[in-house]
Amino acid sequence: MVKKISLLGATGSIGTQTVDIVLADPGRFEITALSAGRNLSKLREILGLVKPEFVSVADSGDAETLRAEFPGILFGSGREGLLEAAAGTEADIVVGAVIGSIGLEPTLEAIRSGRDIAIANKETLVAAGSIVTAEADKHGVRLLPVDSEHSALFQALNGEDPKRVDRLILTASGGSFRDKTRAELEGVTVEEALAHPNWSMGSKLTIDSATMMNKGLEVIEAHHLFGMPYDRIDVLLHRESIIHSMVEFEDTSVIAQLGSPDMRVPIQYALTYPDRLPRKGTERLDLAKIGLLHFEEVDLNRFPALRIAFDSGRAGGTATTVMNAANEVAVALFMEGRITFTEIEPLVERALERHDLISEPDLETVLAVDTETRKAVLDMVK
Amino acid sequence: MVKKISLLGATGSIGTQTVDIVLADPGRFEITALSAGRNLSKLREILGLVKPEFVSVADSGDAETLRAEFPGILFGSGREGLLEAAAGTEADIVVGAVIGSIGLEPTLEAIRSGRDIAIANKETLVAAGSIVTAEADKHGVRLLPVDSEHSALFQALNGEDPKRVDRLILTASGGSFRDKTRAELEGVTVEEALAHPNWSMGSKLTIDSATMMNKGLEVIEAHHLFGMPYDRIDVLLHRESIIHSMVEFEDTSVIAQLGSPDMRVPIQYALTYPDRLPRKGTERLDLAKIGLLHFEEVDLNRFPALRIAFDSGRAGGTATTVMNAANEVAVALFMEGRITFTEIEPLVERALERHDLISEPDLETVLAVDTETRKAVLDMVK
Repeated sequence: MVKKISLLGATGSIGTQTVDIVLADPGRFEITALSAGRNLSKLREILGLVKPEFVSVADSGDAETLRAEFPGILFGSGREGLLEAAAGTEADIVVGAVIGSIGLEPTLEAIRSGRDIAIANKETLVAAGSIVTAEADKHGVRLLPVDSEHSALFQALNGEDPKRVDRLILTASGGSFRDKTRAELEGVTVEEALAHPNWSMGSKLTIDSATMMNKGLEVIEAHHLFGMPYDRIDVLLHRESIIHSMVEFEDTSVIAQLGSPDMRVPIQYALTYPDRLPRKGTERLDLAKIGLLHFEEVDLNRFPALRIAFDSGRAGGTATTVMNAANEVAVALFMEGRITFTEIEPLVERALERHDLISEPDLETVLAVDTETRKAVLDMVK
Repeated sequence: MVKKISLLGATGSIGTQTVDIVLADPGRFEITALSAGRNLSKLREILGLVKPEFVSVADSGDAETLRAEFPGILFGSGREGLLEAAAGTEADIVVGAVIGSIGLEPTLEAIRSGRDIAIANKETLVAAGSIVTAEADKHGVRLLPVDSEHSALFQALNGEDPKRVDRLILTASGGSFRDKTRAELEGVTVEEALAHPNWSMGSKLTIDSATMMNKGLEVIEAHHLFGMPYDRIDVLLHRESIIHSMVEFEDTSVIAQLGSPDMRVPIQYALTYPDRLPRKGTERLDLAKIGLLHFEEVDLNRFPALRIAFDSGRAGGTATTVMNAANEVAVALFMEGRITFTEIEPLVERALERHDLISEPDLETVLAVDTETRKAVLDMVK
């Protein structure tokens, strides 16, 4: 049976790799809807390869232009178009690969429409994890992780009783600057930050890897996806990114998922779960060739973003919403050259300090706090 | 519910560790029968701790002596006693921890009586794998691996579709002499061979680890337990013995089981499967403390026993019976100081060369070939 996919965030890194997987197995997968932002050249390329029924873009003018070019496709735009792509079509599964907290509303709409979610948009779970998991439970919808770390945990938990889990161990490569001291970070450039040692991924994610805020977001995501308290989630530095993450059980057994760093493996797993399919384009793991795997503890003084994330996660409520929004703005400011790399974390901390925590926010509150935090961080650098 | 255990080979390394596990959780486990060989002092110690209904020892005179000492216990002896311990009592599960091919008949008896088998006696599967797995299928009996490697594979396969498995990867520490060249093996002593770098286990197994015949036996065991062709079973040198083995799936994902080298973990897993129980006495895995994991290819010229095992496995039929019997005798001869360490493998090869392969032997043939091979190897060193 063909699995119908709605792909939100089609022109990004996860989006284009999802298209690759679909094209490799046309008898099994079909993209019925997709959304993109403003990258029209990439979108045109994708629309030359797949034929969705509905496509949404950020801008209504762009939608107009594309309607003329692709008469067989329905186009929408803006928030409304994105929600229509998420929930208004016949998809069996929604791949949520939009970057940032803009992915929150469409993910919730997709959940409410009863579709399984392949969740690549970690900010959704960070900004509003309790709301999203509660809705998923309510609608009997599966949240299938796409992040390599969470896919690894999900695979390690396969066939196991979650009650027997003692600890989740997320591995972290340490990002582009892992071999630099805190002092050496002062003068680093955007280009240096974007050179990730292991993974090929979008730029926001690559900057987040360099601060290790990405690992912090993943800790919060793991907390929500697997219902695990923060004191039972560990982060381990593992520079090779070969062990993608591990689960420790009560009997001291540890189950790990390993593989070449290729995002198409976890994306495909989310699409084929509980089955697996051959992956021809991915290099097989050759541990003899790799020879050595390194592991070290993470120094939270060296990587304050990870400490901030654990603290925000433990505080709960809107703390992670604020942390996430402030981080998105701070990373954008760094990429625009308006702040230095080491100013990212202090901005996030200041946003958290000025915020009055709301313990059990509803969606409107989350969205309001998100907007308000963005504005506040922009004001801080004026 | 209390799980009733018949423990075959109670005084050996796996046997005593099984007793430890049972004693740690008396509300969950009970030993109703056990067998031992000639180690009466160890047996007396165990009978001070657990109260089985039936005990079998090798020698009828010993049984007589013990009857007087332990009036509340029934004693048997010899082959008949061993078969009674395997199949004649009320056990839910039989732990087959007898060393060597003497474990074959009681294991088959236990299978035919419909009991699940925690299989620590790898020679059973090597000498007569096809017969044992066919009987287990016929009687709907589970073969639960106890070897750390096979337990790791079994755990990695949990919840997975066996059809999606691409490859089993057995890890090997390399044993006591892994850092010696072939030439440097000439003068090694029994004491040196018995000093295993990672695992605490019986002496036959420790010598087999040093030749890597142990890994060869495990390859054959894995072939039978998991129905995997030999060209899809790999061996990887991994000196730390932290990754206990791995399964590679068609999508290139690799699932591994890791942990401290403590046999009580896989023994307990076989007893609690599909559940897990806390293990208080076992050190938790601390990869940051370990720091480095090493992996290398195995050189089959350096470890000819592994090549012999793959060749015998591929030949099938009585080839592995002969290999196993010849190896048991050769190891005994080495421990008695009658041959040198490097004479072990050539003796096994000569036994295989002189044997006329029988492709689909029945149990009688297997036992006859076993006996005949032992005699032939002894004749070779006269």
